[in-house]
Amino acid sequence: MVTDWNSLLFPYNQAAKEWKVKLRGIREEYQIMDEHSPIEFVTSRIKSIDSIKEKMIRRDIDPERLTEDMEDICGLRIMCPFLDDIYQVVNILRKRNDIEIIEERDYVNNEKKSGYRSYHIVFRYPLQLLTGQRNILVEIQIRTLAMNFWATLEHSLNYKHPDVFPDDVHKRLQEDSETAFKLDEDMSQIRKDLIDDAKKQDKKGE
Amino acid sequence: MVTDWNSLLFPYNQAAKEWKVKLRGIREEYQIMDEHSPIEFVTSRIKSIDSIKEKMIRRDIDPERLTEDMEDICGLRIMCPFLDDIYQVVNILRKRNDIEIIEERDYVNNEKKSGYRSYHIVFRYPLQLLTGQRNILVEIQIRTLAMNFWATLEHSLNYKHPDVFPDDVHKRLQEDSETAFKLDEDMSQIRKDLIDDAKKQDKKGE
Amino acid sequence: MVTDWNSLLFPYNQAAKEWKVKLRGIREEYQIMDEHSPIEFVTSRIKSIDSIKEKMIRRDIDPERLTEDMEDICGLRIMCPFLDDIYQVVNILRKRNDIEIIEERDYVNNEKKSGYRSYHIVFRYPLQLLTGQRNILVEIQIRTLAMNFWATLEHSLNYKHPDVFPDDVHKRLQEDSETAFKLDEDMSQIRKDLIDDAKKQDKKGE
Amino acid sequence: MVTDWNSLLFPYNQAAKEWKVKLRGIREEYQIMDEHSPIEFVTSRIKSIDSIKEKMIRRDIDPERLTEDMEDICGLRIMCPFLDDIYQVVNILRKRNDIEIIEERDYVNNEKKSGYRSYHIVFRYPLQLLTGQRNILVEIQIRTLAMNFWATLEHSLNYKHPDVFPDDVHKRLQEDSETAFKLDEDMSQIRKDLIDDAKKQDKKGE
Repeated sequence: MVTDWNSLLFPYNQAAKEWKVKLRGIREEYQIMDEHSPIEFVTSRIKSIDSIKEKMIRRDIDPERLTEDMEDICGLRIMCPFLDDIYQVVNILRKRNDIEIIEERDYVNNEKKSGYRSYHIVFRYPLQLLTGQRNILVEIQIRTLAMNFWATLEHSLNYKHPDVFPDDVHKRLQEDSETAFKLDEDMSQIRKDLIDDAKKQDKKGE
Repeated sequence: MVTDWNSLLFPYNQAAKEWKVKLRGIREEYQIMDEHSPIEFVTSRIKSIDSIKEKMIRRDIDPERLTEDMEDICGLRIMCPFLDDIYQVVNILRKRNDIEIIEERDYVNNEKKSGYRSYHIVFRYPLQLLTGQRNILVEIQIRTLAMNFWATLEHSLNYKHPDVFPDDVHKRLQEDSETAFKLDEDMSQIRKDLIDDAKKQDKKGE
Repeated sequence: MVTDWNSLLFPYNQAAKEWKVKLRGIREEYQIMDEHSPIEFVTSRIKSIDSIKEKMIRRDIDPERLTEDMEDICGLRIMCPFLDDIYQVVNILRKRNDIEIIEERDYVNNEKKSGYRSYHIVFRYPLQLLTGQRNILVEIQIRTLAMNFWATLEHSLNYKHPDVFPDDVHKRLQEDSETAFKLDEDMSQIRKDLIDDAKKQDKKGE
Repeated sequence: MVTDWNSLLFPYNQAAKEWKVKLRGIREEYQIMDEHSPIEFVTSRIKSIDSIKEKMIRRDIDPERLTEDMEDICGLRIMCPFLDDIYQVVNILRKRNDIEIIEERDYVNNEKKSGYRSYHIVFRYPLQLLTGQRNILVEIQIRTLAMNFWATLEHSLNYKHPDVFPDDVHKRLQEDSETAFKLDEDMSQIRKDLIDDAKKQDKKGE
């Protein structure tokens, strides 16, 4: 059985640190060019030992195959200002040479039943350890600030009330997620209108 | 005239670093007690030299009195999950012994014309420098994740289109701010309902 | 008995973080003035739970009085380039308004039997917690890079060989500490000679 | 001519951040295994714009070939407790798959005229930028704490007295470097003797 959790989790902690620096670097690169950054901020978390154990039982995961079969031990989260920024970040990740993407799930346009929206990417990252290279699975969740507002509060409510939500609460949360999404769409539309206006002004000025 | 900006800004940079550690410590203290933290995350920024210069001219501020009269050179921002958390954070700050609060402005319930909402606190912080103690003005903006969503995107639009927004854009932004605020209120209501439900369950179980 | 170590150690962790930022700020203040900084780098450590338990038994410390009677739970270390820098740092700390120094021990000129040299300062720091202000004991060890070289290697040898060192090893370590101290004195002398030379040159140039 | 220094230096800053996390991870990996870490601490620095300009003139480097021909813009420094640790770190770096080593210089046993000792490694690191992959030159200096003591103080003296040192100062610095190196050798010998003793004890105990 898995026993030394510190040793087992070290590679995931290390991968999370390396990726936090890489992803924050993307934001800085845009800022130095004085361009709009599709990344507002980045966070990371390592799955708790209790959650890992619970998922091993629930999905009947062999301890020997833990690192191959559990893809969200090392998790990063990218918060984007605008809706379009999500897909810009996805494209940036797809072009990198230092990872191999093995899965993408678009919960932005296909939200979960709860109302949850985000874009998920899982990739293999060749981490250098003292014992040699090891391919680590990393999961990145990409979402807007509005989606993050909803997901953070829903998670907070869930944490304090772990039972299934009553039907009406469930429905109100879905509706609030929908309203947050409409806010995202509206802010994107305002942005496009302002850009179109600016173009028209430029033409007039010619 | 003020010339050595590095020296002039050093105390504000140092105060910002010290306060980032203090405010993040509040979140950790709640987490260690396994209680809901009213602080989700904390950021800081030092006013840019260009903005300081522009404000000195606009408000006719004497360079000699810059550090007494400009209260937002050192700025911190606290993002809260729920609406009520804002006032909990305000109370925590009011009780501290290491600062003297000199101004509070509630833009949460009295939003600015633009639609901007946040709670602002300005306080004096006795910073220890090599030349002795110096009282530094620090401004903390406290807002929900939903308010931060709106303010971040509005700022991004403003940055790219520095002219006054057309009337219809202005109105749509106000409406989106209103919608975001209603989302905050609704999530708070769901939270209260869940707590009330849990209390009723407890009573039944007795 | 003390049980919840996370809660017990939180204030010490928080104090260590706040002081790391304060002490590193001193270095930055010198650098911005383009002056020699008496602080080269700063580290911190919280006493391990095992060491706290062991010391409680050895010194018969009442758990209720742990935070008053154990003065090195929160430890910071300042590394100085030159010997004189140690006393400059001591003076900087003595002048601060945010602490009350309660003990100073000069192991620089009065080394321990092992050969250990450093200057120790213990002070009370009023930490702001959710429950109000709490005075935390903080110990700062101030030493040169040469003293730190010796102390780091001696500690490493001790960790791997926890028994008392054989007499000859003990003596060689004392001698190496003495040699390291002479290096400190010699580098200080070179520094003074160069400054004296520069002054003579200046006079000639007048 | 090179003009936008922020853009030019961004990749070096980013590479320095990524490598600081990678190298500090090596120390953590040893600590989690409860083994002696050959890395005590890690620092980084980016060459100042003034130094880059001065070197471009001195070595007649074409601005177009700056990033290929100047190998120390991105510099990292690894401080080791014991002499042997230097070569252990060199071996760890040689085994990594994420870099291509292009130069090694052993100033540990072949010190410079000044007395300077360190092991230098220059490698190519494939950095991921928005415009694609770019190979960045990174220089890592590996040295003991004793060598770092000497180099830090010599650099400090040099900075304040930029002229060539007088002959006697030059000689005394060489001698102090030699003494520091003998301290390194002596501490290594003590370490070996303690290990040998422990082995003998183990044999007796069988």
